[in-house]
Amino acid sequence: MSMSRTMHALVYEGAGRTVWREVPMPRLRSDTDAIVRVDAGTICGTDLHILKGDVPGVTPGRVLGHEAVGTVEEVGSGVRTTSVGDRVLISCITACGCCRSCRERRYGQCVGGGGWILGRVEDGTQAEYVRVPFVDTSAYPMPVGLSEEDVLMLADIAPTGFEVGVLNGRVGPGDTVVVIGAGPVGLSAVMGSRLFSPSHVVAVDVADGRLDVARLLGADTTINSRHEDAASRILDATGGLGADVAIEAVGAPETFALCAEIITPGGRLANIGVHGRAATLHLERLWSKDVTITTGLVDTSSTPTLLRLATHKQIDLAPFVTHAFSMSEVVEAYTVFADPVRSNALKVVLAL
Amino acid sequence: MSMSRTMHALVYEGAGRTVWREVPMPRLRSDTDAIVRVDAGTICGTDLHILKGDVPGVTPGRVLGHEAVGTVEEVGSGVRTTSVGDRVLISCITACGCCRSCRERRYGQCVGGGGWILGRVEDGTQAEYVRVPFVDTSAYPMPVGLSEEDVLMLADIAPTGFEVGVLNGRVGPGDTVVVIGAGPVGLSAVMGSRLFSPSHVVAVDVADGRLDVARLLGADTTINSRHEDAASRILDATGGLGADVAIEAVGAPETFALCAEIITPGGRLANIGVHGRAATLHLERLWSKDVTITTGLVDTSSTPTLLRLATHKQIDLAPFVTHAFSMSEVVEAYTVFADPVRSNALKVVLAL
Amino acid sequence: MSMSRTMHALVYEGAGRTVWREVPMPRLRSDTDAIVRVDAGTICGTDLHILKGDVPGVTPGRVLGHEAVGTVEEVGSGVRTTSVGDRVLISCITACGCCRSCRERRYGQCVGGGGWILGRVEDGTQAEYVRVPFVDTSAYPMPVGLSEEDVLMLADIAPTGFEVGVLNGRVGPGDTVVVIGAGPVGLSAVMGSRLFSPSHVVAVDVADGRLDVARLLGADTTINSRHEDAASRILDATGGLGADVAIEAVGAPETFALCAEIITPGGRLANIGVHGRAATLHLERLWSKDVTITTGLVDTSSTPTLLRLATHKQIDLAPFVTHAFSMSEVVEAYTVFADPVRSNALKVVLAL
Amino acid sequence: MSMSRTMHALVYEGAGRTVWREVPMPRLRSDTDAIVRVDAGTICGTDLHILKGDVPGVTPGRVLGHEAVGTVEEVGSGVRTTSVGDRVLISCITACGCCRSCRERRYGQCVGGGGWILGRVEDGTQAEYVRVPFVDTSAYPMPVGLSEEDVLMLADIAPTGFEVGVLNGRVGPGDTVVVIGAGPVGLSAVMGSRLFSPSHVVAVDVADGRLDVARLLGADTTINSRHEDAASRILDATGGLGADVAIEAVGAPETFALCAEIITPGGRLANIGVHGRAATLHLERLWSKDVTITTGLVDTSSTPTLLRLATHKQIDLAPFVTHAFSMSEVVEAYTVFADPVRSNALKVVLAL
Repeated sequence: MSMSRTMHALVYEGAGRTVWREVPMPRLRSDTDAIVRVDAGTICGTDLHILKGDVPGVTPGRVLGHEAVGTVEEVGSGVRTTSVGDRVLISCITACGCCRSCRERRYGQCVGGGGWILGRVEDGTQAEYVRVPFVDTSAYPMPVGLSEEDVLMLADIAPTGFEVGVLNGRVGPGDTVVVIGAGPVGLSAVMGSRLFSPSHVVAVDVADGRLDVARLLGADTTINSRHEDAASRILDATGGLGADVAIEAVGAPETFALCAEIITPGGRLANIGVHGRAATLHLERLWSKDVTITTGLVDTSSTPTLLRLATHKQIDLAPFVTHAFSMSEVVEAYTVFADPVRSNALKVVLAL
Repeated sequence: MSMSRTMHALVYEGAGRTVWREVPMPRLRSDTDAIVRVDAGTICGTDLHILKGDVPGVTPGRVLGHEAVGTVEEVGSGVRTTSVGDRVLISCITACGCCRSCRERRYGQCVGGGGWILGRVEDGTQAEYVRVPFVDTSAYPMPVGLSEEDVLMLADIAPTGFEVGVLNGRVGPGDTVVVIGAGPVGLSAVMGSRLFSPSHVVAVDVADGRLDVARLLGADTTINSRHEDAASRILDATGGLGADVAIEAVGAPETFALCAEIITPGGRLANIGVHGRAATLHLERLWSKDVTITTGLVDTSSTPTLLRLATHKQIDLAPFVTHAFSMSEVVEAYTVFADPVRSNALKVVLAL
Repeated sequence: MSMSRTMHALVYEGAGRTVWREVPMPRLRSDTDAIVRVDAGTICGTDLHILKGDVPGVTPGRVLGHEAVGTVEEVGSGVRTTSVGDRVLISCITACGCCRSCRERRYGQCVGGGGWILGRVEDGTQAEYVRVPFVDTSAYPMPVGLSEEDVLMLADIAPTGFEVGVLNGRVGPGDTVVVIGAGPVGLSAVMGSRLFSPSHVVAVDVADGRLDVARLLGADTTINSRHEDAASRILDATGGLGADVAIEAVGAPETFALCAEIITPGGRLANIGVHGRAATLHLERLWSKDVTITTGLVDTSSTPTLLRLATHKQIDLAPFVTHAFSMSEVVEAYTVFADPVRSNALKVVLAL
Repeated sequence: MSMSRTMHALVYEGAGRTVWREVPMPRLRSDTDAIVRVDAGTICGTDLHILKGDVPGVTPGRVLGHEAVGTVEEVGSGVRTTSVGDRVLISCITACGCCRSCRERRYGQCVGGGGWILGRVEDGTQAEYVRVPFVDTSAYPMPVGLSEEDVLMLADIAPTGFEVGVLNGRVGPGDTVVVIGAGPVGLSAVMGSRLFSPSHVVAVDVADGRLDVARLLGADTTINSRHEDAASRILDATGGLGADVAIEAVGAPETFALCAEIITPGGRLANIGVHGRAATLHLERLWSKDVTITTGLVDTSSTPTLLRLATHKQIDLAPFVTHAFSMSEVVEAYTVFADPVRSNALKVVLAL
């Protein structure tokens, strides 16, 4: 392990303020921990929410970040399947592996000390080193033949779009799928939907650049809702029937309402968006429509499957990465990532 | 067939007004129709909504009612499996059997001329005779050994509670199920839940009499929400976890909100209630909780199964019937049914 | 309707003998029947079994064939959704739409007068005209933009491969699927598997020509079991784990045994093959392996979905059609179809 | 922990020979191990197979037994959720919690060092003390209010009957379920079936005493196949349709064949029996019948649910226990257990 007793990391210092500075090296605290050198990381939309002070529980001094690829430097005495030198994907979700939620594969709901903890209540991955709790059940061996960039996208956005959007929405052959919001997670849902052969994937956003990427990833129709009435175009395109699956990937009452409006009887509305406010649910229209609405936090239970699909080139993660920085430029990377209108940024890679 | 050219029926004459009067006998209009003599009928909560003028599409002159047991008097030339003299259960849902919805067993969403039509857009069953469209796919042979009262409950409320509440809510062994609203449909959900061996069935209502029936049908805990805070009692009783399944059987924003409040991560909220107003959905709390919310109209796809269960005494429908009238007393029966606080009425039987 | 009182048809005259000859025109027998002019038909492997005298219940005088595209010439008084002049796909499965099986979407098990009846116990489609019983629930409108050849493949082989192979086998993203037998139905299973994004589709056959088509339809690995040990190659290719899904599309004890041998713990063995003899099931190896084995007759419940997929070019049916004949050359067509080693025939089209 | 360096245990000494003798105390070998004092154990049918020399991999010197209730005496440094003094159910299945099988809840197929190992390839529970590997994911806290006898039945037979029989067989309301073999596991399947409200549960065995217990646990029909033709009685009782679910709990080709014979189209055959020989599968009859056949080793994934059901008295485990011995009398207990015809034994309890 590194001899240095300090490292650099991106530290949250209160709403609106982060700094890349020297901090103590992380150390093993539990014997199921590992210390991992971060080879590459990225920034998530949730990190921007933290920066705004919107995420309760994140206190000043916290190292941010919950997505990384790295190399194992040290493991606790209770670590069984992970070894020093292993290259691993660090998942956004930490799983204790023993609690009732973990036994039911709901790792996102882990009540044994895991869940989404990295970069929120434990120091995270936007750093030179990170402590990964429960490493055996929370990190994945990096497959041969995949680039760091590809694998990084599997730390959070790809399983989130796939599990919370595509699987919850039960996308099937011949379906019409509408994805509202073509940010990284919405685009993951577009990409993941294609794995089940829907006949139509419609992407809706306000940014033409993101809609272009949606087309690249499998959307056959795109709607810029700044210029067009999305609801009427979708109803027109489906002969008035509406969508079999509507995926909310924005996190606003208006976009949730749009999903509820365009859904066909028997359809599924899969919410992925992180909401800060209540929405209105028009039960006076929906009560008789056989609609299923789901919410969910990613479990990363699909990560092994997605790694296999990436290895076999069945999903293409290259279009997600628009910018690259060195880890020490992370503050600048946040500026670029936070202003996609100007920067056209989707995901930025932070390489050591 | 009867020689008389007229019969008596309960006719809707505009909001708040019905009358039992002479009307023309129904006649075959399509060759898949049957004319059925009504041996026994009942009144549904939805009929009260119609009476208030709340159900669009019901025009003055309409004969009400969508639940009956009767004897087939005449069949069209295209009727194949139903014969004159057969005793049948007339289901609240009419199924054309050919449209896309019917081919997917979503009879409640039939777009081929069926769905909920009797007593709404076609003359109904609170009459001496009724025309039953698509009789082969919309009526069920009455099994040997069951009383008219038992079978009547299977026309609407039993499959509604079972399909829209219990099956949509995916009740399973060991679950905690909470049913909000112990009217006839909520009680059906209580009864139906027991078929899957949950460990707890909690019924919530404002009427002690109904909660007594809930206990009879399988609730092990009852809460009168007029006197107790239902949410905190349910959370206490489940160690703060909440319910695996919450079934809304009232149709009000407040009771829907209660369901959403008490549901455990990974839980299911099955809405049965007929809503007239929008509800508030607290996505800022629910977005990460892996919750599934369903709505639905009954399909009566479970009717054959429920008939089998009733025949084998696995469900007990007797507690639902609190009052009996002759069909000609139907106006009085409405008065009793509409005032359960005074009458303790659940379901009334109207016998010819 | 045609004025002629006779037509030509392929008549089975006992084991090994068929003749294209004049027979009486079919007439409406039930008011849910239609008379359909056959525009194009094809020959099924099952027809060859009949010809060998292997299918009990087929008596001399029977007109063969259960796959066709045609134009409706006449409909009974009880036909509701099909009209004279409609171009329709005639499905191999006839569904009464009313019986318990049909209500559960098991049309292949129809006990109300349907099931596989055409060309077996009722006169079939290798004729100028055919009577289609229960036409409203047994034929499908031909979509705009599809050729007769494409739609013909949906009469039997495409839904058979999809339902009995792919859906029963629960093919999913990342799976390894092995299809034993690359005849028309096995090839349909190869094609249908791709809709769910398995990582590997392996096709096994003894004919290199068929394996070439398998590659065209989505197999990434092909094994000629005449020259290679299929079991060991599959086990090698999967690191000794075996296949997630094994699809039997031959109908012999040996190929069934091969499927059972290569299946991974937790895997699914979907049998499509028509078997004439018992197989050996090595329960002494399989009892602890969490294996699911399914059998089934096609229900054609997926036909609407497959028609949509074909319309959107998501499945490519062109490679199935290797030969074309006029209907009057049907005897010659049988000769070609029955000798694929020589002819390389997969499916032959018989056009009027 | 106990100071003594030796203990007593039942040691397998080769086919047909066991002895209760002094052996070294088990010691922690891995830091996720626990040493548990056995408070009560039992004998499984599989132990008899071992005794006959039928189970490959069991070598002389092995301590037998894979079912127990005990008290934790010592835990390794990597044990997180289990503490010294905890009373626990020791499951027949050990789960590493990390491997692909465990992550998919297929603990019975664990490839990380678990699976069925106790009393087979690791020393087992018919002893004063036992080493329990991966204790956090392989033992369950004993609930308040349950007797040792009740909980013991959940170590193996109850989850085996429930998971491999009832859940694999997808028993549902109104079904007809036939269980062939009324030994402890078959009886568990009878009991577990009732949780899903089938209309009929038929038990078949050759011993009247066991059929009496089957009635006690929920069978409404029992058939002694020594005196009656089971197949024809079942077909008669179901109007010729056969069973929706047939559960094989014997492990012989003949009983498997009986299951296959009586199953209705669309039915499920769930094999639980441990087979030593191949069976004949009559595919020439089954290929078109939409049958699903499953095999499986118990995963004990249902153990938490079953513990809840037992705590709430929803399953009654008392009828399973017919004899009690002290642990030191285990050799005699085997004699009694191995001769149920004479002893009427179902399960024997071995108490310390």
